[in-house]
Amino acid sequence: MTGEPRIGDVFGELLRDALAVSTGIGPRPLAGGRLARPVIEIIERDDGLINGAPAAHYLDGPAEWQPHDHRAVDRVRGATLDVGVGAGRIALLLQEWGVPVTGLDTSPGALAVCRRRGVRDLVSGTVDEHVADGRRYDTFLLLGNNLGLIEGRERAPGFLAALAALARPGAQVIAHGSNPYGTRDPVHTGYHELNRRRGRLGGQLRLRLRYRELGTEWFDYLVCSPEELGDLVHGSPWWLADVDDRDAPYYLATLRLRAR
Amino acid sequence: MTGEPRIGDVFGELLRDALAVSTGIGPRPLAGGRLARPVIEIIERDDGLINGAPAAHYLDGPAEWQPHDHRAVDRVRGATLDVGVGAGRIALLLQEWGVPVTGLDTSPGALAVCRRRGVRDLVSGTVDEHVADGRRYDTFLLLGNNLGLIEGRERAPGFLAALAALARPGAQVIAHGSNPYGTRDPVHTGYHELNRRRGRLGGQLRLRLRYRELGTEWFDYLVCSPEELGDLVHGSPWWLADVDDRDAPYYLATLRLRAR
Repeated sequence: MTGEPRIGDVFGELLRDALAVSTGIGPRPLAGGRLARPVIEIIERDDGLINGAPAAHYLDGPAEWQPHDHRAVDRVRGATLDVGVGAGRIALLLQEWGVPVTGLDTSPGALAVCRRRGVRDLVSGTVDEHVADGRRYDTFLLLGNNLGLIEGRERAPGFLAALAALARPGAQVIAHGSNPYGTRDPVHTGYHELNRRRGRLGGQLRLRLRYRELGTEWFDYLVCSPEELGDLVHGSPWWLADVDDRDAPYYLATLRLRAR
Repeated sequence: MTGEPRIGDVFGELLRDALAVSTGIGPRPLAGGRLARPVIEIIERDDGLINGAPAAHYLDGPAEWQPHDHRAVDRVRGATLDVGVGAGRIALLLQEWGVPVTGLDTSPGALAVCRRRGVRDLVSGTVDEHVADGRRYDTFLLLGNNLGLIEGRERAPGFLAALAALARPGAQVIAHGSNPYGTRDPVHTGYHELNRRRGRLGGQLRLRLRYRELGTEWFDYLVCSPEELGDLVHGSPWWLADVDDRDAPYYLATLRLRAR
């Protein structure tokens, strides 16, 4: 046997169990059928690196957020699309504030968790798929490191074009990224070097997520410097208007739609 | 790239980092080079199941232990070998009590952590390798689920013979196991069935551990019922004298050395 996972809705199962653990309601994983165990998200990188991270943070209320999350929501205005809504932590606060917010996710399980937590307006799919729905937005949120969805040089033009197709005049993107190049850990610097040799951006991670018996396909997820982001945005319908790196190596990038 | 880990001292690296996180001393893994992240042990099963578990429990003091751990140490008498000493949580308490305790482990990193935490008598190796050292014991501890080291039908006779070769007359083994057959989770019942079809005990797990870029080789680790344990012990130099299952599905098995 190879130890290979079955392809499935990793993120949805993970969030469903994390919600069950946090509320005490519904079936949840038990060690030895007896002791509740924390739900751990497992992230594999294609060089063999693996990391586990407790999933509870997806359910965090504003009191537990990082400062940059607060600064991100303070920039929101108008109809807002929360891209990769996850368990809905951001959308729930915006809803409470009366902001018209739509949660977008490709994970059916994540959308089900959002629904149970009270997020009202939810759409299943990618940004590209959502264009045909005819809805338009003033703000796009890519929080929780979701600037990573830009993937790399190949995907960036299409991703940014889809956001522009969903945008009203004057729209903005608020994206949370992490600058990967501050580390001296050879596990990471070696990977950046390997990536460059194979024609990729240094922090263009090739990942898959795993949870219990399920895994995702391998996918690209970008961690890039603000400079690299500037290059990726260049020539797109957007321009990089601001980088807030007060919580470096994390940063909030604000893109603004060019006048057409 | 295949995502395969490099073979190394997974358990030692994990414990070293867990100690660094708990003490705040020494280099430790940081998310984005900034926020301390909990150390997570990752356990892969050969059917593709994967679980992450926070490693901090290896450092737990007696106040945080499960009740069966307390009942196990209460049974200790005489010279004691802590088989799979880990980060030394059991050995440290016995030492404090004045029990002559020796910690045995195959992980150099685990032994280094034990040494830093104050465990005085440590031996590197397996029980088989330790026989030649000429030391003999009255009590063998297999705690933290380490009954699993008996592996299965093939390894059990050799493992029990090695413990007997290390034993003084009247010696006992105190082993912590988990009965795996109470669950109705198909992820587990299906695996038990698969195991039986391939001629293994239902709970004979084929596992590897992973931590960051490192992995172990695949190894067998047994979770068995007390009845199965009775069968494995039958015909060995030991007899199954007691099963304490007050914390079922966990249990403490006591083996006693037969008179020769």
